[in-house]
Amino acid sequence: MSKPLILHEDPCSGNCYKIRLTAALLGLPLETRQYDILKGETRAPTFLHDVTANGRIPVLQIGEGENAQFLPESYAACWYLASGSRLIPEDRLAQADTLRWMFFEQYNHEPNVATLRFWMTFVGEANLSEEQRAQVPGKRANGEAALALLDQQLATAAFLCGDAVTLADLVLFPYSHVADQGGLSLEPFAHLRRWIADIEALDGFAPMA
Amino acid sequence: MSKPLILHEDPCSGNCYKIRLTAALLGLPLETRQYDILKGETRAPTFLHDVTANGRIPVLQIGEGENAQFLPESYAACWYLASGSRLIPEDRLAQADTLRWMFFEQYNHEPNVATLRFWMTFVGEANLSEEQRAQVPGKRANGEAALALLDQQLATAAFLCGDAVTLADLVLFPYSHVADQGGLSLEPFAHLRRWIADIEALDGFAPMA
Repeated sequence: MSKPLILHEDPCSGNCYKIRLTAALLGLPLETRQYDILKGETRAPTFLHDVTANGRIPVLQIGEGENAQFLPESYAACWYLASGSRLIPEDRLAQADTLRWMFFEQYNHEPNVATLRFWMTFVGEANLSEEQRAQVPGKRANGEAALALLDQQLATAAFLCGDAVTLADLVLFPYSHVADQGGLSLEPFAHLRRWIADIEALDGFAPMA
Repeated sequence: MSKPLILHEDPCSGNCYKIRLTAALLGLPLETRQYDILKGETRAPTFLHDVTANGRIPVLQIGEGENAQFLPESYAACWYLASGSRLIPEDRLAQADTLRWMFFEQYNHEPNVATLRFWMTFVGEANLSEEQRAQVPGKRANGEAALALLDQQLATAAFLCGDAVTLADLVLFPYSHVADQGGLSLEPFAHLRRWIADIEALDGFAPMA
């Protein structure tokens, strides 16, 4: 890959970290430009004009200057970086199974496990709105169910899709390994804790900021 | 593809329809087994044992008997069916961009547009819990924002990823075209309405049940 890769990110965001972790394990050089979401830096006119009109990060920038291309959504960026690598199985069913876990993360895991962490650690429980507060018990139950399903799967194999690490593991690792910051204990999930340690021991592993 | 393909579905579910629509446009024969989610048929012991332990549909079954394989998550099933077809661009950036819209659907569109439709049309507004009722204004605002972003993108090209239809269009069509059943009007979105008509005119198009 000859074009420079630039990640527009907030270092506190697990979604941004998914991309950094993917690049790290593949040994791909990745520059970063950092923004503070809570200070509204991704809503600044220069960001909206130069990077992405929808004001959300992460955005992966491929190339520089007039020919630069911008890819929003963390998973699209991860998929781009990992295309053709060992992190995406070539076999048709295995590839679909990798995506299965990635979509599970977006729909069943992230909105519960990551949102609880954001609310409890960054917003603060005392500052939650009434609408948010009403959702906490549901998100806690759904978050625990998502962690339990991962634990159940990881009882059957070393990684989510079998013996080898795939993109599925890399996108589920970031918010899983800090689930306790949202009040979800990892204590009941021995297989999940074993898998977290295994990922942290991978060659090229990069920790979350 | 020689193995029989069997979709375990609820015909009322837009997530199941995404898979049927993908198979229809590709001309792939797809058998269906139908269940009524609201009657708990996907929680029945035979379903949990024979199809999927997590009690959720859709599930795509590939093959029959002892060697049958089961793929949960609608997107994984769509990806499996469309692998190697014109619906998934081969170019690295174009393929990541297709996934970008698919993940946008799962995270920003479906939890708002589809959930409002489910609550208003299937559960009934009068039967919503307090927790659900508190979420309606937020989901309405987020659903409108998701439809507006689609409309904005469809002002720039015939389909979401350019001149040709891709899997991104097929997974965003189902809940978008019935958004009004959740109280979200399509009236302000002319490009989105044009795109809906274009998809309905595609060769092989199959309507939602």
